[in-house]
Parts: sequence; structure tokens; C-alpha cells
Amino acid sequence: MVQKTLDDLFLAQLKDIYYAEKKIYRTLPKMAKATKVPELKQAFTAHREETQGHVERLEQVFEMIGKRAQTKPCEAINGIIAEGEETIEDFGETAAIDTGLVAAGQAVEHYEMARYGALIAWAKQLGMSKAAALLNETLQEEMKADKLLTEIGATKVDKMATAKMAA
Amino acid sequence: MVQKTLDDLFLAQLKDIYYAEKKIYRTLPKMAKATKVPELKQAFTAHREETQGHVERLEQVFEMIGKRAQTKPCEAINGIIAEGEETIEDFGETAAIDTGLVAAGQAVEHYEMARYGALIAWAKQLGMSKAAALLNETLQEEMKADKLLTEIGATKVDKMATAKMAA
Repeated sequence: MVQKTLDDLFLAQLKDIYYAEKKIYRTLPKMAKATKVPELKQAFTAHREETQGHVERLEQVFEMIGKRAQTKPCEAINGIIAEGEETIEDFGETAAIDTGLVAAGQAVEHYEMARYGALIAWAKQLGMSKAAALLNETLQEEMKADKLLTEIGATKVDKMATAKMAA
Repeated sequence: MVQKTLDDLFLAQLKDIYYAEKKIYRTLPKMAKATKVPELKQAFTAHREETQGHVERLEQVFEMIGKRAQTKPCEAINGIIAEGEETIEDFGETAAIDTGLVAAGQAVEHYEMARYGALIAWAKQLGMSKAAALLNETLQEEMKADKLLTEIGATKVDKMATAKMAA
């Protein structure tokens, strides 16, 4: 049996995030639909377009390492998204829904940041600087998306959620 | 039916992270056991002690809001930890295991950072500055743990994983 090394781990993680990105792409419209805050709707919609780009970058990385682009079910993203859907179910028609959606989106972004951070470090160690640069473009977009959610949460959303309580 | 607001969301999320912290507490010994890198073993062991403190802080916050400390199954952390266990299964006896464990630990930390970030913002909005300060102590420790994992990954671990490939 061949001893598994970092390139096996890299490939396993690549399949994991490839699955995650595709799942996120399918989920973002539900999140956009669940909010009435225009800025948040717009953020989810725009991030969906970016996510399509993330999927394509991953396909380029698969090509670079001479492997077929393949998903591997990612229980982590399934769990994170299931919680987001639960938030929509439980808070869908309440004043807190948008706050919940911001938090759900941020949980997704943070998961991705952790995974891309690791992939980039491994790509560099494996001498794949072009793959590292490509993955870093995605990481930057995930970080920007997270920051935008924080801003929207602080300026556009939370006042609506607390307004009722102050009333 | 009473309209749900931010305090309901806060309570739901508090139960979620309470479950997550308890699960992490039970999982960290498995991670410590799976590595042979002393610094990584020590990091997981020390973080387990911190995690006990995180559980206790959450119990204090439950008390502050006059609610019984109660868990709510957190599918996200279950998924993230299941992936970590899969890494141990798939790479347990290989040179890449420690790299995989660092990444698994960071995925956990990032999830927690996202959740605590939201809880702190909501506590502030709800006028619970004492709870916010308490949760922020935990957030700082999670961020420190993540940073330590990055350092260990870069200096103590990755060279071992790639050594075989260079040989």
C-alpha cells in the first residue's frame, strides 16, 4: 500500500470544498429569498455569482494536478447549511430573520476561509504556486463577503430586529 | 403566538454553541491521541482545559438571562467533527495526519469564531454588556488557539508531511 502524504490530503480537501461550493451555490437563492432587506438580498445574489467562479477555479486546480473534478460529500457544510435552513424555518416570519441569515452566511464564509487557508498553505508546500494564487483569489472573495455581511448586519439589519423589543 | 425577536435568536444560538463546546470537549482527547507531534498534542490538551472554561462561561450567560443551561443539537459542529474523525481514519497512520489534524482543529475554531462573533454583537444590541464581555473572553481564546494551530502547522508539522515526498 502506498503511504498517503500531503498531496492525498490536498486532493481529499479539494473534493470536499468542491462539494461545499456547489452546495452553497444551490443554497444562496433560498437565503436571498428569505430576506426582505435589499442589501442582504443583493449580497447573497452577488455572492452566488462569485461562487460560480469559485467552482470554476477549483476545476482549474483539479486540472493542474491532473485529476478529474470530483465532489466528496462534506458533512461540515451540510451541517452548517442545515442550521441555516432551520433558522429560516424557525425565524422566517419574524423580525430576527435577517440577523439570523447574516449569521448563517458568516458561518458558511468562516468554514470556507478555514478550508481555503489550509489548501493554500498545502499548495505552497507542494510547490504549486499557481494553484495557491488561484485559491487565494477565492479566499479574498470569501473574506470580503464575510466583511460585507458584518457591515450589513451592523447597519441595515440589526436595528430592525431590535426595533420591536424597544417598542 | 408571540413574535420571535433577537433575544429568541440569541437563546437558540447560545444552546447551539453550548452543545458545540461540550462536543468539542469530548473530541479533543481523540485529536490529541491521534498526533505524535508533541506541540500539537499539547495544544489540543491545553485547549481542552480552556474549553471547559468556555462551557462554564456559557452557563453564566444562561444564568444572566434567567434561562436553564440547555443544549440544542448543532449539526454544523457534528459535521465538522465527523470530517475530523474521517481524517483520522483515512490518514491516521500516514505522514499527513498532523497536517490534517491542524486543519480539522482550525475548522472547529473558525466555526466557533463565527458563532461567538454573532453572539457578542447580539448581546451588545440587547444591552447585555456583561454577557458580551464574557463571550468575548472566549472568542479571544478561540482566536489564539487558531493562531497557535497555524504556527504549529507551519513550523512543526508540515515539514514532516512533505519530507517523504521530497525524499
